[in-house]
Amino acid sequence: MLKYGMVGGSMSAFIGEVHRKAINFDPRAKLVAGCFSSDIEKNKEVQEVYEIDRIYNTYEEMASAEGARPDGIDFVSIVTPNSTHYVIAKNFLLNGISVVCEKPLCFTVEQALELESLATKNNLVFAVTYTYTGYTLARVMKEMIGNGKIGNVIAVNAEYVQDWLLDELSDPGAGQNLSVWRKDPNLSGVSNCVGDIGTHIESFVHYVTGLKIKRLLATTNTYGEQLDLNANIIVEYENGANGAYWCSQVAAGRLNDLYVRIYGDLGSLEWRQEEPDLLRYTPKGEAPRMIARGTSYIEELSANEKRVPSGHPEGLFVAFANIYRDVISDILARKAGTTFDKECSYPTVSDGVNGVKFVHAVIASANNNSSWQEI
Amino acid sequence: MLKYGMVGGSMSAFIGEVHRKAINFDPRAKLVAGCFSSDIEKNKEVQEVYEIDRIYNTYEEMASAEGARPDGIDFVSIVTPNSTHYVIAKNFLLNGISVVCEKPLCFTVEQALELESLATKNNLVFAVTYTYTGYTLARVMKEMIGNGKIGNVIAVNAEYVQDWLLDELSDPGAGQNLSVWRKDPNLSGVSNCVGDIGTHIESFVHYVTGLKIKRLLATTNTYGEQLDLNANIIVEYENGANGAYWCSQVAAGRLNDLYVRIYGDLGSLEWRQEEPDLLRYTPKGEAPRMIARGTSYIEELSANEKRVPSGHPEGLFVAFANIYRDVISDILARKAGTTFDKECSYPTVSDGVNGVKFVHAVIASANNNSSWQEI
Amino acid sequence: MLKYGMVGGSMSAFIGEVHRKAINFDPRAKLVAGCFSSDIEKNKEVQEVYEIDRIYNTYEEMASAEGARPDGIDFVSIVTPNSTHYVIAKNFLLNGISVVCEKPLCFTVEQALELESLATKNNLVFAVTYTYTGYTLARVMKEMIGNGKIGNVIAVNAEYVQDWLLDELSDPGAGQNLSVWRKDPNLSGVSNCVGDIGTHIESFVHYVTGLKIKRLLATTNTYGEQLDLNANIIVEYENGANGAYWCSQVAAGRLNDLYVRIYGDLGSLEWRQEEPDLLRYTPKGEAPRMIARGTSYIEELSANEKRVPSGHPEGLFVAFANIYRDVISDILARKAGTTFDKECSYPTVSDGVNGVKFVHAVIASANNNSSWQEI
Amino acid sequence: MLKYGMVGGSMSAFIGEVHRKAINFDPRAKLVAGCFSSDIEKNKEVQEVYEIDRIYNTYEEMASAEGARPDGIDFVSIVTPNSTHYVIAKNFLLNGISVVCEKPLCFTVEQALELESLATKNNLVFAVTYTYTGYTLARVMKEMIGNGKIGNVIAVNAEYVQDWLLDELSDPGAGQNLSVWRKDPNLSGVSNCVGDIGTHIESFVHYVTGLKIKRLLATTNTYGEQLDLNANIIVEYENGANGAYWCSQVAAGRLNDLYVRIYGDLGSLEWRQEEPDLLRYTPKGEAPRMIARGTSYIEELSANEKRVPSGHPEGLFVAFANIYRDVISDILARKAGTTFDKECSYPTVSDGVNGVKFVHAVIASANNNSSWQEI
Repeated sequence: MLKYGMVGGSMSAFIGEVHRKAINFDPRAKLVAGCFSSDIEKNKEVQEVYEIDRIYNTYEEMASAEGARPDGIDFVSIVTPNSTHYVIAKNFLLNGISVVCEKPLCFTVEQALELESLATKNNLVFAVTYTYTGYTLARVMKEMIGNGKIGNVIAVNAEYVQDWLLDELSDPGAGQNLSVWRKDPNLSGVSNCVGDIGTHIESFVHYVTGLKIKRLLATTNTYGEQLDLNANIIVEYENGANGAYWCSQVAAGRLNDLYVRIYGDLGSLEWRQEEPDLLRYTPKGEAPRMIARGTSYIEELSANEKRVPSGHPEGLFVAFANIYRDVISDILARKAGTTFDKECSYPTVSDGVNGVKFVHAVIASANNNSSWQEI
Repeated sequence: MLKYGMVGGSMSAFIGEVHRKAINFDPRAKLVAGCFSSDIEKNKEVQEVYEIDRIYNTYEEMASAEGARPDGIDFVSIVTPNSTHYVIAKNFLLNGISVVCEKPLCFTVEQALELESLATKNNLVFAVTYTYTGYTLARVMKEMIGNGKIGNVIAVNAEYVQDWLLDELSDPGAGQNLSVWRKDPNLSGVSNCVGDIGTHIESFVHYVTGLKIKRLLATTNTYGEQLDLNANIIVEYENGANGAYWCSQVAAGRLNDLYVRIYGDLGSLEWRQEEPDLLRYTPKGEAPRMIARGTSYIEELSANEKRVPSGHPEGLFVAFANIYRDVISDILARKAGTTFDKECSYPTVSDGVNGVKFVHAVIASANNNSSWQEI
Repeated sequence: MLKYGMVGGSMSAFIGEVHRKAINFDPRAKLVAGCFSSDIEKNKEVQEVYEIDRIYNTYEEMASAEGARPDGIDFVSIVTPNSTHYVIAKNFLLNGISVVCEKPLCFTVEQALELESLATKNNLVFAVTYTYTGYTLARVMKEMIGNGKIGNVIAVNAEYVQDWLLDELSDPGAGQNLSVWRKDPNLSGVSNCVGDIGTHIESFVHYVTGLKIKRLLATTNTYGEQLDLNANIIVEYENGANGAYWCSQVAAGRLNDLYVRIYGDLGSLEWRQEEPDLLRYTPKGEAPRMIARGTSYIEELSANEKRVPSGHPEGLFVAFANIYRDVISDILARKAGTTFDKECSYPTVSDGVNGVKFVHAVIASANNNSSWQEI
Repeated sequence: MLKYGMVGGSMSAFIGEVHRKAINFDPRAKLVAGCFSSDIEKNKEVQEVYEIDRIYNTYEEMASAEGARPDGIDFVSIVTPNSTHYVIAKNFLLNGISVVCEKPLCFTVEQALELESLATKNNLVFAVTYTYTGYTLARVMKEMIGNGKIGNVIAVNAEYVQDWLLDELSDPGAGQNLSVWRKDPNLSGVSNCVGDIGTHIESFVHYVTGLKIKRLLATTNTYGEQLDLNANIIVEYENGANGAYWCSQVAAGRLNDLYVRIYGDLGSLEWRQEEPDLLRYTPKGEAPRMIARGTSYIEELSANEKRVPSGHPEGLFVAFANIYRDVISDILARKAGTTFDKECSYPTVSDGVNGVKFVHAVIASANNNSSWQEI
């Protein structure tokens, strides 16, 4: 059984709980160490609730202690504020510990490449939780495209739209506290909306199609705030096709609407995060088919390990759990000296690097009269 | 921390895994004992995977041993074949252990009443996992109706339709093995389809409306098999309104479609299990509103403890986890000598009794020229 | 070119205008005579707006005059209040004039059979505008079932639900005037809701499946009014399968929701009047296909004469126009001494007879403790 | 009663029939003259079917003869191939006859401005059938935005996607003949896809929001053909907000999917041509409301003249008929020396001018490395 630790994730932090419950889906890993909060009481609270063996006051202490123990943790899950991902991840890598890190990986391309290099050099697993790629049908979509079901990709339209920052737009005082750091470049990097949700579009489209972006152009909208709250992006892939990406946090009536549509010369695939158990597949010249997760007519391998039967909503926890399952399998394989071989697998530090490059290119284009930026 | 055990649920049994993962959402309970299979190897397999303290060869042995231990389990989760629920549940109750049992509770009304009586007499918790009542919006729906948002209920239309037994209908040899026991009265009781999924309609409508069925009439269809695969039921509630229920396992194109619509004289509420994060609410004379889980405009208490933010699908595991959370809270309250007080709570053995009565009334009506049967 | 007349349909009457515009889709027929209102000014108003050759003060006068003229009308369109359909239709038939009549055909089975007999004896066309059968995809549905695409029908679920009488339920004074006659047995016959919209369910299911109802049972709800506003019906077809029908005019949030689902042992077809250009077709064991009107993958003959291309909503007028087109073709064929031969055609007086029988059986069952009524 | 003529629209031409039937909805206009085809037999065929008074061999002859007659036509409907719109429209304007012209108005900005100038100078009505603005809910949408229901527009996302040219892309020989002219610049102007359907996006967004485009940038895709089949466009409105437009004729599974979403700082409105009777309205901070056409809770004036009741699909013919009704009212008002005063009215030659400018700007940007083009 693998042992893991966590940095961040006090009982009141939403995303840490989700990670813990998702890892809990897999009996092959157990939480044994943590630095859940700089507040010593909050740190202890998690220890008590989860009966955790050891807690640390700082992540540096944790990284060096765990790296030194013969029974130290096999991987760490980093669920701290975005601005701290880089230093924490680097610290654990330097102590020989694999990393699962929330997105965005970090704020600059240099940092991103450094983390990628450290992980590769030390043969460590480094996953970035672009969670939505963990849904079963996202993986089926990837395989179907890989199997030629829609032919060559000729057009992409993808969006990720929310409305939860609309309140702040018209009345900053009424906003939710959570968003304060999202408007501060020191805490959010060069971008708010593109960094927060636009990168999910980029990583998801890349995950399912394998397409690489050659260049892109963009407009962003700040509506008087310091950072972007809305962005339109046109990308050109290396195969010559174009894609349009739209992300927004001020689109009234849209909650968490990642909607990805891939059009090929032999058909199309359309998928929506808010209805993750449904995939709309149209073979050229035929009627659209509403493919449901868990059904016998799906031939793709990634559909085999269904955790809940068809017609029973899979939910967000399963998306996280699928990513962690792959991470755990990979670490176990490396420990056993074998290779983790899986058709559809988890987003790695390289995807994190792509994400950081993407965000910088979008902001650079927006700041340069929407001119093309090579990636 | 509570300790719990499980009867049934080997690694290859689907529903046992779902229960374990769902209970795992709550750090207040820990799996310490089990009788996961009569096959000793399979029993050991679960023990090893989950590092479980003690396993037993029979449920009788487990019930008496755990009942006798000072550190014995606080509750048992029963996930065995339907025909064994009664004897197993009875055994644990007699040993002073609270029970969570998969539906259907048992096969006869006498058995059901006996279990209810045993639980009450011994002040034990007895939950029946009518899972779909665990979705957050099912609970919001219950509160909204309770708060008068749709006025008096004047009509109900509810259905639960699947298609997975259609294959067997036309070609018995090609069927899935799983369904064999569903067609055998010794293993399924007097009904297949009504007992399996029709009871979910009955319990869900009762859960959200509080309405009691006064009488009902029904037709069932066996299509040449021994037990029902399709049923149409008209119910009359004690308030005089009628409801139409339809359940089927041979409706091509429908996976697990529990669809419940409640119409009142001031508005309506419509909800679908396959899209559990959406509730269609129409106040009389206004446009339908698509209420999404996790949003600030929901005023109901049951919406407060959201595990995932709006727009992120909640999924089946959360429905299970919500029921277990209430069960755990109730057991802890009883141990502390207090009362578990919650607006929307879990289905109990009394709901299980209603379910058994419902199934028998439906089959009696179908066998008596669809005449009215009092409940 | 055929000549036609109209009884009823003053400029302020909604349905008369719809009929006129729908017939206008066909250049083979022209409005030349009418008795649009007993109010002489309103009668003249239509004459002036539409430049009509001759108007009459009474339908009796019109029927005999037109029947006597060598250039008299070829058919009459009757769009008067329901209680007058019988006498008007009879009058025109006796004068040798073909009839298109709004539903319901009449109020008693005897009247219905008399009209059927008169039409047959005189070889006259008699259409009843069960309009929804005129949608292109309703006809495609009929052909697909006829071609065996879903095998043998094993279950039916159909409903027609509205909410426009909900206002009157709770506050009679606030109701719309239109509904007054709907609550008066002298003006509505034995039923309000079943007669008004329930019959559409019966006729539509019969149209697409060809199934005949052997017997039925029902509950109705009047909510303190004189006539039914809601009804649940279970039918048994001659092939042994059951169907559940629900009609209501007090279901908040539902406008004109005729929703028909036919399940066979090889697949299913599901269609909704409010989205008439879409047909959900699920072959057994495959993903549901969203069949759109006007596409090349539809092989059925009835899809050939598309009036608007795919993706452009067809609308209610086309449903009416398709029925009138068939009526006109039939009359022209009879005049030419040939036979009108068309796979999918219009509802006739025989369908009107079935409708009247259906309504009476439903009310008889509801009045007799929901006992089975043979048809 | 007005008299009108038509150029183009033989019996086999789809769109001419649609125009004739739509105008037929209005008893205030009558078809009396035409030049339906250069093929004399086809010309006569329409005359016979519709009993038309006079036909002409050429449009020039028709324009001068009708302009000279005291009882000449009041307006002409031009439904010929796109490349001929300009000369025909000009000819009728010069003869003092009002014009209704299919879109695109013409191929160059100079031609467009000339037509606009001629119409204005002679006080003639000149409508361009951007049909989708004729749907009742499109007009309600316009009024709601005008009334401030969604506040200031801060983001727009609109698309118009089809798949009917996908066949030609991969196999030119298998294509439909209709599309040949769409790939020939002599017959289609500088653009195929943007000119054909992209302009509908531009005109619709302008119609409902009143926003003017300041500048735009674009990519187009020809996939080896001579003209564009897919285009992505980012626009900047004069108010500083951005919009993203996507048009495609090679998006498998999409038929005629004009989907327009307008986001304001107080709410949003979302509408889809394929479901024209439904408008999704989300006031900030509230649940989305599914507004249906024909309901009493719509307060906008444009909803008053409903032709079919709520829940009965309106359809494409009504969209056309609504535009023609306004055109007829305007011509009658001018003849009476009064002013046609209507909140929501028809698209005019000025909208046609905007459309031509839009197409040229898009192509210019695509040809200039996607640089911004002022409009």
